[in-house]
Amino acid sequence: MAWETRPVRAVDDGQAPDAVAVEEPLEIRVHGRSVAVTMRTPGHDRELAAGFLLTEGIVDGPDDLAALEPVGTSGNVVDCVLSSGVDAHRDALERATRELYASSACGICGKTSIDRVRIVASCAVPAHDLAPAFVLALPARLREGQAGFLATGGLHGAALARLDGSLEVVREDVGRHNAVDKVLGWRLLADRVPVSDAVLVVSSRAGFEIVQKARIAGVGAIVALGAATTLAVDLARDAGIALYGFASADRFNRYA
Amino acid sequence: MAWETRPVRAVDDGQAPDAVAVEEPLEIRVHGRSVAVTMRTPGHDRELAAGFLLTEGIVDGPDDLAALEPVGTSGNVVDCVLSSGVDAHRDALERATRELYASSACGICGKTSIDRVRIVASCAVPAHDLAPAFVLALPARLREGQAGFLATGGLHGAALARLDGSLEVVREDVGRHNAVDKVLGWRLLADRVPVSDAVLVVSSRAGFEIVQKARIAGVGAIVALGAATTLAVDLARDAGIALYGFASADRFNRYA
Repeated sequence: MAWETRPVRAVDDGQAPDAVAVEEPLEIRVHGRSVAVTMRTPGHDRELAAGFLLTEGIVDGPDDLAALEPVGTSGNVVDCVLSSGVDAHRDALERATRELYASSACGICGKTSIDRVRIVASCAVPAHDLAPAFVLALPARLREGQAGFLATGGLHGAALARLDGSLEVVREDVGRHNAVDKVLGWRLLADRVPVSDAVLVVSSRAGFEIVQKARIAGVGAIVALGAATTLAVDLARDAGIALYGFASADRFNRYA
Repeated sequence: MAWETRPVRAVDDGQAPDAVAVEEPLEIRVHGRSVAVTMRTPGHDRELAAGFLLTEGIVDGPDDLAALEPVGTSGNVVDCVLSSGVDAHRDALERATRELYASSACGICGKTSIDRVRIVASCAVPAHDLAPAFVLALPARLREGQAGFLATGGLHGAALARLDGSLEVVREDVGRHNAVDKVLGWRLLADRVPVSDAVLVVSSRAGFEIVQKARIAGVGAIVALGAATTLAVDLARDAGIALYGFASADRFNRYA
């Protein structure tokens, strides 16, 4: 479940259980070694791990994964076995395989400098210039897929939209970067990366790490319901990604 | 400046510069060694570093800081010199002094296990049970202090409220944990920790790391304008912190 109940007293002093977004640690291991612990909402953990490994530059596609399975009974550990011969990205693994721990909103832990944070995208990104009507329809479609947000008000959502405006996948998480990793990992496990034929939609703000993840996955356009940051705008411009912010049913901003 | 302009095209195809929240990396060093890079909004960097060192358990008060100053000309590096004799927290420093990097929303990087994440608070936390009228007034007061949010829609805010309802400090950042570190660091630099005489107010959701930071700083009550997570509710209950969520002018939830 993406949410649980907790006792809550509202302002009128009524006491009732309320739906609260679940936050638990997920430890991601590679060959038994801890690569990261991220504070996430349980569910779609294989996708989350696959998306994390993709956007950290450790794997490029499903063929790089010999196995990706839960470990133990806690439900909070997954282990990845890389295919033999996958060592082109040893640097990325070495960088990631420190004892680094990501909070529910952390996407770029483990980089040794801001320059290395700007990992070169592994494929050319074809920017999508989107029709206004297409962008304006996306926020309502995303909300329709966000059962957890409706119940708790505390879960971020991410989705991939086809170019006909329909959503092919929606995922939720307390961490916005985890929700993005889940939808990108879903594509990786389906052997459909780069994600050049879909638009990434996020319920949250677009910060640097969201644009960075999109860039590595080959996404050409991002639509955020919240604001963008300067670094996100600058990175999107450098990478040729079309970035939209403050998207709602009647407005959006297109950043350069 | 907390914001800069970027060209933006709105849905009506008008093109205009728009205020965008600034996101830049800040490298925090201790004795010249990199402890963390956090994606933050420039400004109040000494407070941010002081709050980070406090809530990571590396320092307990201003006497532990022999120096805390900017380094170089980038404006994005601060270095801390610990007072001689401050080695009681060497474990915390060793843990933190890995090459760990925090995104603008990351607060608990560098812990080696979820159990260690739950650092024991250094002082007893006296829970504040707050009057409803007090809680209901806080969201408007916080927004009044958030010039950056008004300009950009993309900055989190954190404040400390006195028990008469007035705010003693307000800070903004693209990262919600950074905004919290800034107000807690402000208190540390003023030699006024633990923060048992004030209420922490956050414009964002309350996740685990926000409650954890409050706990270490000795805060007895947290008022969040957004939702809380299960782990935040559970930690607040264990720590005896009063946790309020979804606070607005006409409602709030009090979590157990």
